[in-house]
Amino acid sequence: MDTQYSPNNIFAKILRGEMPCIKVYEDDDTIAFMDIMPQADGHTLVVPKEAAVNLFDLSERGAQAAIVATQRVARAVRAAFNPDGISIGQFNGAAAGQTVPHVHFHIVPRYNDQSLRGHARDMQEPEVLKGHAERIIAALREQAP
Amino acid sequence: MDTQYSPNNIFAKILRGEMPCIKVYEDDDTIAFMDIMPQADGHTLVVPKEAAVNLFDLSERGAQAAIVATQRVARAVRAAFNPDGISIGQFNGAAAGQTVPHVHFHIVPRYNDQSLRGHARDMQEPEVLKGHAERIIAALREQAP
Repeated sequence: MDTQYSPNNIFAKILRGEMPCIKVYEDDDTIAFMDIMPQADGHTLVVPKEAAVNLFDLSERGAQAAIVATQRVARAVRAAFNPDGISIGQFNGAAAGQTVPHVHFHIVPRYNDQSLRGHARDMQEPEVLKGHAERIIAALREQAP
Repeated sequence: MDTQYSPNNIFAKILRGEMPCIKVYEDDDTIAFMDIMPQADGHTLVVPKEAAVNLFDLSERGAQAAIVATQRVARAVRAAFNPDGISIGQFNGAAAGQTVPHVHFHIVPRYNDQSLRGHARDMQEPEVLKGHAERIIAALREQAP
């Protein structure tokens, strides 16, 4: 598994503001935004700000912040989309399906009557993603602090 | 998604010592043991001791402890099995593939030349699992504290 961090990966560029993202959440340690190639409607990514390729390289503090942000955003995804289930996925290494070499957590809504779309395959329209993000942001606002 | 916790689920029984498990790790908040129907050799589960059906019901403290234990055990699985990748999966609701209604994290080694075996499908021989557990326990012992 690659552990040499490259500051040119797309999430590093998003964190530096050099690339856009459709953001739903941010705190001191993490940012969350819509996956632009969603496997299901509401597919959101939680990205630690720490420069780490994978979960092995991430500090304990970074991991703790990421899972708490994942809980928070996943609850909002649940409220916004009312799916039958939600899977959390965190992939380390290309063999595990990791496509961007900066550690991240997938929040993927699951529906009884829908199989997942392929991972990192088809781009969704930005306007559709913005609509989904608005629903998640509204649900985050309604969460108890 | 079901959120009514049943103390009769199999992980609750394992936590109470009423059912056996092939344990690799334990701390105040979590326990980790071999999945008896592994999707790949080294497939390990990290289970918070807190009585929670899923990630939504788990306390922040429980989630933080679980991800730190997952990091620790996943590093040991990596050292013991040297896989090409490791995926972390945390499934909420049957639609997401959750089969036991007590929150848990899957650590699944991935190999370039092997597709995963089905989830919760085929029982592995206890002696084989004990051999895998010994390799993970040895790797945990060698980790810096």
